[in-house]
Amino acid sequence: MNNSFLSRLTPKEPKFFPLLKEMSDVILRAADLMIAFASSHCGHDEAIEFYKKIKDEEHKGDKLSIRIFDELNSTFITPFDREDIHDLANNLDDVTDGINSAAKRIALYNPKRLPDSAVLLAKLIKEDAECIARAIGELDVLKKSPAKITQCCNELHDIENKADDVYENFIIKLFNEETDSTEIIKLKDIMYELEKTTDCAEYVGKVIKTIIVKYA
Amino acid sequence: MNNSFLSRLTPKEPKFFPLLKEMSDVILRAADLMIAFASSHCGHDEAIEFYKKIKDEEHKGDKLSIRIFDELNSTFITPFDREDIHDLANNLDDVTDGINSAAKRIALYNPKRLPDSAVLLAKLIKEDAECIARAIGELDVLKKSPAKITQCCNELHDIENKADDVYENFIIKLFNEETDSTEIIKLKDIMYELEKTTDCAEYVGKVIKTIIVKYA
Amino acid sequence: MNNSFLSRLTPKEPKFFPLLKEMSDVILRAADLMIAFASSHCGHDEAIEFYKKIKDEEHKGDKLSIRIFDELNSTFITPFDREDIHDLANNLDDVTDGINSAAKRIALYNPKRLPDSAVLLAKLIKEDAECIARAIGELDVLKKSPAKITQCCNELHDIENKADDVYENFIIKLFNEETDSTEIIKLKDIMYELEKTTDCAEYVGKVIKTIIVKYA
Repeated sequence: MNNSFLSRLTPKEPKFFPLLKEMSDVILRAADLMIAFASSHCGHDEAIEFYKKIKDEEHKGDKLSIRIFDELNSTFITPFDREDIHDLANNLDDVTDGINSAAKRIALYNPKRLPDSAVLLAKLIKEDAECIARAIGELDVLKKSPAKITQCCNELHDIENKADDVYENFIIKLFNEETDSTEIIKLKDIMYELEKTTDCAEYVGKVIKTIIVKYA
Repeated sequence: MNNSFLSRLTPKEPKFFPLLKEMSDVILRAADLMIAFASSHCGHDEAIEFYKKIKDEEHKGDKLSIRIFDELNSTFITPFDREDIHDLANNLDDVTDGINSAAKRIALYNPKRLPDSAVLLAKLIKEDAECIARAIGELDVLKKSPAKITQCCNELHDIENKADDVYENFIIKLFNEETDSTEIIKLKDIMYELEKTTDCAEYVGKVIKTIIVKYA
Repeated sequence: MNNSFLSRLTPKEPKFFPLLKEMSDVILRAADLMIAFASSHCGHDEAIEFYKKIKDEEHKGDKLSIRIFDELNSTFITPFDREDIHDLANNLDDVTDGINSAAKRIALYNPKRLPDSAVLLAKLIKEDAECIARAIGELDVLKKSPAKITQCCNELHDIENKADDVYENFIIKLFNEETDSTEIIKLKDIMYELEKTTDCAEYVGKVIKTIIVKYA
């Protein structure tokens, strides 16, 4: 176990894992809010309320990022590990940011009606969040279960492919059926941001895979 | 030659170079297909066929990426080198992904007519592919020919500038001549993705330059 | 001070700091030009002139990037440090590129009238430039003033949030008031590029923070 991610980290610094876990909890809650938001077909005022709740989660994510950065600076561990934790925290943050941006666009653009495929994308983001939570939960026993974590990362890749399909079908329908070009711009932008969030989640998988390459 | 990219890699693990070479072959074939696609001014059904062929190449690229990742994990080499190969493979994958995304957009959006500048961009992507293939081909003799590889990377930068010019001229024409805003959205999106693919190729050059900075 | 960023860099290679400082000067000048450009409400010919001046700065940034790369290759310092300087130079370049892209879009798209919020974004980019210049100026005494540099990085984060707000308010107004969808596409694209430049600046802060994590 010598020289491994685990041995360098856990014995000395078990506090990073709880912080990373909290970050993945933020993503889970933001994803749940996004499902509720996309399903609600609510008016503008209620949309602002949903956006505010998601923004609150994004702020929590930001604060956790900053705490991780501060801990990294005040803690004696090797520089190598520090970078990886910093990188992972930044990429977890990007997922929450993606959900927040999509929510912001819905609230700001105020489209006539959100397509049902927005709910499908929100549910895929929730699947991402669950995968990420599982992978983060295994990080402290990386040496024992690299295959399990690799499996989570591969699922993130598959979910991204599914999100691509949903987005594609949405775009075909949009160009065929919507005649108002302002509405096309709005909906395409919102759906693009939701789809891009699954890219960010897939990227978290790539960062975790890089950690596996280095330490498992 | 001690402690160099070459000495750490080749004697122990010559298998990474063939896999990276295969990835650059995938890019070459996808670029050729894109030139044929953009030149064809074909109908929707044939467009779907072109897209499927390009998607096949993209799948091959994906599989090569995964094989490289698995090899990295099952092979004893230093963690440092592993990361660089992983990074390079990811970025080669992004080029194929870019070609695939552009092909997907043409097939999905079904624009009235693709502009001639789409062929110009496809040809620049082919030039990128040839540069990348040359650089990858020299990687195993990095110590002997860093100047040659640096030259390839600089060419990737120049090609990206040319692609920028093509895109610019296309945009000026589009805004001046096209009156259908749905068509503007479609063509701008397709051409943007083609142009962005040359950015990805330039980025491969930056990653290779980073490898040169470290090992040459 | 042993093994620190400073000790590895300054005594042997004080030349990197002046080059990085020159890069931050390029950003400052490009930002000033962008404020003048956005404030001018000039015609197409004058717009081309502004764009050319900004492009000149971008070329200077490019050349500095290449010089830093060449210096990194011809200088004996450890690979680790090299990468970080290379990374920082690339990200400084991205900020200038962002200003250049926004200027290019204004000149190419030739919108009817640039909104006042474009000036607000240009001024925030100038604030970014000043923060970056301050942080770069402290890099050679990183060990003495990590808190000061961290403060600059946090400011870059705050400026990005302000730019987000400006962009949001602009978008709400645009969708409510502009009826010409081609004009919507043009202005949204231009303003998006300005806003994205503040993202690039924030990213410079993240790279500097990573350097702090490693060496301070």
